[in-house]
Amino acid sequence: MVGKTTWLIPDGFLPPKSTGEHVSHEAVCVLNVGDADAELRLTFYFEDREPMDRFRASCGARRTHHIRLDRLRDEDGHPVPLGVPYAIRVESSAPVIVQHSRLDTTQEALALFTTMAYPVD
Amino acid sequence: MVGKTTWLIPDGFLPPKSTGEHVSHEAVCVLNVGDADAELRLTFYFEDREPMDRFRASCGARRTHHIRLDRLRDEDGHPVPLGVPYAIRVESSAPVIVQHSRLDTTQEALALFTTMAYPVD
Amino acid sequence: MVGKTTWLIPDGFLPPKSTGEHVSHEAVCVLNVGDADAELRLTFYFEDREPMDRFRASCGARRTHHIRLDRLRDEDGHPVPLGVPYAIRVESSAPVIVQHSRLDTTQEALALFTTMAYPVD
Amino acid sequence: MVGKTTWLIPDGFLPPKSTGEHVSHEAVCVLNVGDADAELRLTFYFEDREPMDRFRASCGARRTHHIRLDRLRDEDGHPVPLGVPYAIRVESSAPVIVQHSRLDTTQEALALFTTMAYPVD
Repeated sequence: MVGKTTWLIPDGFLPPKSTGEHVSHEAVCVLNVGDADAELRLTFYFEDREPMDRFRASCGARRTHHIRLDRLRDEDGHPVPLGVPYAIRVESSAPVIVQHSRLDTTQEALALFTTMAYPVD
Repeated sequence: MVGKTTWLIPDGFLPPKSTGEHVSHEAVCVLNVGDADAELRLTFYFEDREPMDRFRASCGARRTHHIRLDRLRDEDGHPVPLGVPYAIRVESSAPVIVQHSRLDTTQEALALFTTMAYPVD
Repeated sequence: MVGKTTWLIPDGFLPPKSTGEHVSHEAVCVLNVGDADAELRLTFYFEDREPMDRFRASCGARRTHHIRLDRLRDEDGHPVPLGVPYAIRVESSAPVIVQHSRLDTTQEALALFTTMAYPVD
Repeated sequence: MVGKTTWLIPDGFLPPKSTGEHVSHEAVCVLNVGDADAELRLTFYFEDREPMDRFRASCGARRTHHIRLDRLRDEDGHPVPLGVPYAIRVESSAPVIVQHSRLDTTQEALALFTTMAYPVD
């Protein structure tokens, strides 16, 4: 069984502004090299309010899923809020690998960052 | 108990210059998924002087805190110095996850980098 | 024996557009500090199709190889597809260290990101 | 004893071109939180030639050292070559933490990337 079932990402932020043809966004990139589909649950933590924990996604067996956080909606239809600091927990029904990236086009040109998420279990 | 209580970051630097609407800065991003509030102590190491170790911050239970290093002040009111290389130690009263990011707008456009901090204990 | 023989990278993407003198690209950077040459096999995972697993490369003893993914061809002559999300598994006949980087010149200027790959075994 | 004595970095490259006021460069950022000074030895691996292993540096007790690779010279006065892929091994006489960063101003604006080095021992 390759990977872990819980991953944490402290630095999340969706830039509210974009320039050029690319929309500023973040992606939680999941890789599932196993033979079982993975059901994913995402929880978002904030600086000054309770977590939002009703976001779901999936990643099939032998597939990757680059989950666009600017397009994600929770079970009540709420998006991830723009322009506020957050952190992310990803829980999976099967072991996966999780990487987190941001593309920021707030000012001309674009900026990228990425890191492997922190594996817990 | 998820996370660690000591984290290290060798590459710290606050760019003294900014362009556009974003101020160049760094953030120490802390995630506390536990049930106890975390009291944080930050120590800054330099190339040619003794460490500064009187910076404090906090991160509540089930909260994140993206600590802006350009706004941080120590117990004597001193800021983190601009334009000099430093490194950071973060110590926490409760297990947390720590990620470190820089936004640099020294030259037009903006640049980003990030990495998980190095967990010690 | 320094390193691991399997490494995973969830966030892969070859930007289909470039500006300026640099072509947007990714590199899988391999370091082999051992005394045996390493034969490498790369597998690419996608969101909506079966993996492509017929890519081969190598990294000599006491050498590095920065494998340009935009130039890589599999045994049937197929390139890594542009403009679609993928993930990467690197398997090696000898222990190596693997880091993954992207250079994106889609919009003016250039953006970079990097992370160590996730070591499995 | 906090840290490790050997660290590896597969993706090294010194861009031969710069624009604006910042010179394109890389830095090996070392943090020594211990009580003993650390003597460092850097080895550079290449794609098509034998490693260069006669680079030395140091990092004092309770200090950081952000070693600029574009300014480093080995014991024979040789610099790290520009414009060719390399990888880096850092060996230390005392446990340290190592992070690697690049600043690239080849095209207008600037790009940054960073990652913790891979700890071996």
